[in-house]
Amino acid sequence: MATSIEIVSVGDEVTGGAVVDSNAAFISETLGALGFETRWHTAVRDVVADIVAALQAAVARADAVVVGGGLGPTADDLTAGAAAKALGVPLERHAPTLERMRERFRAFGLTLTANNERQADVPRGADVIENRWGTAPSFSVELSGRPVFFLPGVPRELRPLVTKEIAPRLAARFKTPPRLLRVYKLMGIAESHLDARVADLHAAFPTCRFLFRTLFPENHLRVVIDAETPSARDDLRARIDAVVADRFPDFLYGHDTDTFVGVLQRELEARGETIAIAESCTGGLLGSLWTERPGASRTFRGGVIAYANDLKSGLLGVDKNVIAAEGAVSEAVARAMANGVCARSGATYGLAVTGVAGPDGGTPEKPVGLVHVAVSSRAGETSRARTFPGDREQVRRLGAYMALQLLWDFLRKAPRP
Amino acid sequence: MATSIEIVSVGDEVTGGAVVDSNAAFISETLGALGFETRWHTAVRDVVADIVAALQAAVARADAVVVGGGLGPTADDLTAGAAAKALGVPLERHAPTLERMRERFRAFGLTLTANNERQADVPRGADVIENRWGTAPSFSVELSGRPVFFLPGVPRELRPLVTKEIAPRLAARFKTPPRLLRVYKLMGIAESHLDARVADLHAAFPTCRFLFRTLFPENHLRVVIDAETPSARDDLRARIDAVVADRFPDFLYGHDTDTFVGVLQRELEARGETIAIAESCTGGLLGSLWTERPGASRTFRGGVIAYANDLKSGLLGVDKNVIAAEGAVSEAVARAMANGVCARSGATYGLAVTGVAGPDGGTPEKPVGLVHVAVSSRAGETSRARTFPGDREQVRRLGAYMALQLLWDFLRKAPRP
Repeated sequence: MATSIEIVSVGDEVTGGAVVDSNAAFISETLGALGFETRWHTAVRDVVADIVAALQAAVARADAVVVGGGLGPTADDLTAGAAAKALGVPLERHAPTLERMRERFRAFGLTLTANNERQADVPRGADVIENRWGTAPSFSVELSGRPVFFLPGVPRELRPLVTKEIAPRLAARFKTPPRLLRVYKLMGIAESHLDARVADLHAAFPTCRFLFRTLFPENHLRVVIDAETPSARDDLRARIDAVVADRFPDFLYGHDTDTFVGVLQRELEARGETIAIAESCTGGLLGSLWTERPGASRTFRGGVIAYANDLKSGLLGVDKNVIAAEGAVSEAVARAMANGVCARSGATYGLAVTGVAGPDGGTPEKPVGLVHVAVSSRAGETSRARTFPGDREQVRRLGAYMALQLLWDFLRKAPRP
Repeated sequence: MATSIEIVSVGDEVTGGAVVDSNAAFISETLGALGFETRWHTAVRDVVADIVAALQAAVARADAVVVGGGLGPTADDLTAGAAAKALGVPLERHAPTLERMRERFRAFGLTLTANNERQADVPRGADVIENRWGTAPSFSVELSGRPVFFLPGVPRELRPLVTKEIAPRLAARFKTPPRLLRVYKLMGIAESHLDARVADLHAAFPTCRFLFRTLFPENHLRVVIDAETPSARDDLRARIDAVVADRFPDFLYGHDTDTFVGVLQRELEARGETIAIAESCTGGLLGSLWTERPGASRTFRGGVIAYANDLKSGLLGVDKNVIAAEGAVSEAVARAMANGVCARSGATYGLAVTGVAGPDGGTPEKPVGLVHVAVSSRAGETSRARTFPGDREQVRRLGAYMALQLLWDFLRKAPRP
């Protein structure tokens, strides 16, 4: 029987639907990979009586509880007080946290307000967990003999706290089986095809669970590997690695924490090569994706956002007559943009995208969703066109990833020098 | 007192975190706009006892309950059976639904399987709601005197069912007050300061609730306005509009569906002016933000992503000696980038951002998080520098918004021509 977890999300913004509760899914998935099973999610308003009732119901059912939200500095942040009430203890100001908050604020030239100071209040006897990612403290208490962990609701604080602080504490307290989550990351294959092509693996690996997840436009195969011993688990993983690599040579780009851009960057870095980009409909999105993660400067020279047509000529040297004859969204212009940015930046590769993002600007010949991408280098150039379904956001995102996929294919056909 | 709603989501994929529960937020927001207040969300696994317990807890607390999920054709779809169990009645096959399913399948050249036929089972006495968007029927029952609505969990079926079928039934049954949600959107003020500066409004407007929401880096003040009549409600709204506008002249940029970029675009469009951008550390993010929504081409000429230092000279004409003397992250370079892109693009305004996004590349004089932004036009130029806390993603996002804020301030000082 797996150790059972419950999650309580606190906040009017969650119950009222102003935000979608992605924290609960993140906590379930992160702890699920360690062998903990989440049985209930509950979300309640910023109302002390409701928070107390949710906490009491959760500890009556589960082995451990994780609570997110309601630890901010404003009057409607009531979780710490509700925790104290459920425990029957007063709130106490936690001096080390207050000092840490003072230092944090001082570093940015700010002064603590009385509201901010309230954030250092925790139930008497709570075990304070240092929050290295934000102001609000995290803490845990024992309620009815169950550990209850309290986290700020801001995802960029909650997520690292779950991964770095809560997960190890839960793992230390509860004995969980040597479960492993192995993620296979695929680009360019539909979920239904992926599903059909691994359907037989359920029978071949009966102790493993095969799950699918679309992280648009990628598809991930997530395999939960349960085994009696760590070595049996690692053996299973190696066998499944081999099967997946064999079945999806054209789609599998990486594992676990790999990202598609990261894999491309690693490849260029190994070759000592660089890239520059020329964007139209994506308006900077492609460059933004390439530079999201640290170390981008080792492979990225820069680029041009040639949104207006005359800038395609002015900043990239695209022939005005070609634009007039073929249209701004065309193979010829995509190739000329890639060539132009490659030549003007001195990068090894020029990567270009031009398309009709919509919702306006489509014609029968060039409908909304049409995207041309091109890659150019001294060794040659290539291009590709597709018409995507969906709204503006989707067309832009698919267009940017289509350019990255073209580069991926180009690199695989041109082995390392 | 508003009519209270509870939402129960059923499914291992929700509790396990494989999908984020966007249904609950959709239901809350849709019904919230009609004056219904959602107080609890609960998500449970595909386990009959848990579904029954969740239903019983919900009807004990709320005036009405909406349940999503677990009505599909597979063995783990158990919601209808759980509803029957909670009611103490058997499941019965609903003949008109079965006939509708047969017709639907026939139209696609398919035959019903025994599994599909199970989908026509509803608790005896249930009020069947035709699902025009899919196979699974929707139905409602009375449990402990409360109406409970059951919906399939697939969003493309659940959403129209909520809007077209459930909302009208709830509105007919419960008299809801003429409630209004008014959102005030602020940029550049911390949540704790916003809170403190409206704390007295709770007393001044006792029938209104004041909520806060951070949509990084923005802060929104959300006011739920309850009144006896529509005209009393509109009067309250006008009074609160005036108070908020008076207290936050420097921070309030819009209301309700306004976006910060959209407000800037509207202003430029009204002036017949355009913008071009020059980015370094943000790598395209600023351009991507500007072009996210339709109509961007009316105000956006394009830009340059000058990531490598020599491209700041090559593509934007920044003096190499200035980069050598002042460093790439400096006021002088930010201004030269803004001037360069303005001149080369022919835009009315050039907007530039250069900074140390991190995690590497910081120095004691120029730490990680330091960002310089500049705006340039024929009418003059200005710049601003700040050092932001947080990780690479946060610094990039704050840097891009800092550039937009600088433009906002610049435009407000330069009235429309």
